[in-house]
Formats: sequence, structure tokens, C-alpha cells
Amino acid sequence: MSNYVSALRLPAGEQAAWRGFLRAHAALTRELDAELVAAHRLPLTSYEVLLAVGHAPHGRMRMSELADRVRLSRSGLTRLVDRLARDGVIERMPCRDDARGWFAALTPEGRRLLEEARATHHDGVRRLFVAQLSADELAMLGDCFARLCEG
Amino acid sequence: MSNYVSALRLPAGEQAAWRGFLRAHAALTRELDAELVAAHRLPLTSYEVLLAVGHAPHGRMRMSELADRVRLSRSGLTRLVDRLARDGVIERMPCRDDARGWFAALTPEGRRLLEEARATHHDGVRRLFVAQLSADELAMLGDCFARLCEG
Repeated sequence: MSNYVSALRLPAGEQAAWRGFLRAHAALTRELDAELVAAHRLPLTSYEVLLAVGHAPHGRMRMSELADRVRLSRSGLTRLVDRLARDGVIERMPCRDDARGWFAALTPEGRRLLEEARATHHDGVRRLFVAQLSADELAMLGDCFARLCEG
Repeated sequence: MSNYVSALRLPAGEQAAWRGFLRAHAALTRELDAELVAAHRLPLTSYEVLLAVGHAPHGRMRMSELADRVRLSRSGLTRLVDRLARDGVIERMPCRDDARGWFAALTPEGRRLLEEARATHHDGVRRLFVAQLSADELAMLGDCFARLCEG
């Protein structure tokens, strides 16, 4: 049965790899989110917003580009950035060359928070992901994931 | 430099595996979502709700368990199930032994939609994931992901 491919079922090995991929992603992002919230009161999605803005050219990013980057709807990102602005870590600035456009930028407090949260997050990634895998496995995973992104 | 581990940066190979993991997950779920919406007007998260309910014992699942399963907040799941109920594919039933509890169950129309959507979804998983990887890679990915879920 292991090579049987119906329209409704995947063979066990393929199913294990695919379900494992989804489960590992869910488990790791849930744990990394919990660690960032516990240490900095900063959910993972908010961390990803600070990181994207902090790495953008000139330290600022258009809201529309930011929504794509962190895979949120425009309305979802607007709510999240409202919250981060109330917390004093993000500020919004109008685009000079586009009357309807806004940039998001980090405040000095936001830059401090990002650096602290980054240490927590990388510690989590090392412990939960890197330390569980051999060097060969990490290299092979890198190859596989690159191919999946092209596919 | 490749073995240098600072508090702020991961070595390039580790970074490639980790960023690749996140990117591959985002790219695949985005594409699988788009395919389900195009073929059945059913976003991936809604498909996961139908799948979880369809596989539950007696064909029904408590709303609280369903929220955990599909990793939505209670309010997010309530909105989604409201929409699926309006579309006639999910129905809600009170729990006899818990006055505040509700079950979600598939309607006959929901069961039909799940079977059709499952064929589309598994076709996508085969084309975008399984077909990009060798049998050895699939086995090794299954091992790695199982370890990451335990870690």
C-alpha cells in the first residue's frame, strides 16, 4: 500500500513529512511567540514587524510593503501598528511623494526593544531548531527549503 | 566566521535553514490557500476546520477543541464558523452535558465540499511539496520534523 496514491490519501511517508512540516512550524512558532511574550510582552508577529522595519533602507518601510512582508491583511497590520505606536515603539510618517501612503519607522525605544527581543528570539531558534539537528541535516534542510520556495 | 555565534546573529548555514523553513511554509500555505479559493472558494483555514470536524469521533467537535486544533482564538473561530454556517457547510449543536458548550458538525453539503477540496489540496501538496523532494529527503524531513516537535 505504501506506493498507492489515491485522490484522497497521501502515502504514509509523504503524509509524515508534510504533516510534520505543518506541526513543526506550528509548535516552533507557538513556543517562540510564548518566549517573546514572556520576556518582552512582544508577540512573534509584532517582533517580525519591528525586524522588517528595523532592517529596511533608511529605517522605514511603507505600510503596504510591510503588510506583504509579515503576511497580514492591510486592516490587520493597521491594528497591529496602532498598538505598537501606542506602546511607543513605532511611529508613522506620511510619504512625501504619495499623499495616501504612510511609512512605519522604529522609535529609539523600538530599536532598543528589537535588539533585546532579537537576543531572546535567536536563543530560542538555536535551542528549539538548530540544536535539534546535525550539521548535515541543517545543510540538507536548507537545500530542500530553497527548492520548495522556487517550486 | 561560520562557527561564530553571537547573541545577535546566527551562522549563515543555520540562518539559511531557519529562514528557509519560514519562507517555504509561507510560500506553500499561500499557494495552497490560493488553489483552494480558486477551485472551491474555500480558504486553507476553512478547509482545516472542515477537515478537523470531518475526522472527529461521531463527526462533530467541541468549539474549544476546534479552536486549539486550527490555532485560532475563540473569537476568530466563532467568526469563521459563523461564515461556514451561513454557507451551509457547518452546523452548530448544543452539548447535552455542558450548557455553555457547542459542537460543530458538517452538513451533507459540508461533507461533499470537504471531499472535493481534499482532492484539490492533496494534488497541491503532491505537486508543490512531494514532487520537489527525493524519497531519501522525504524520509529525512520526516525524522527531522518529528524531532523538532518533541524538542
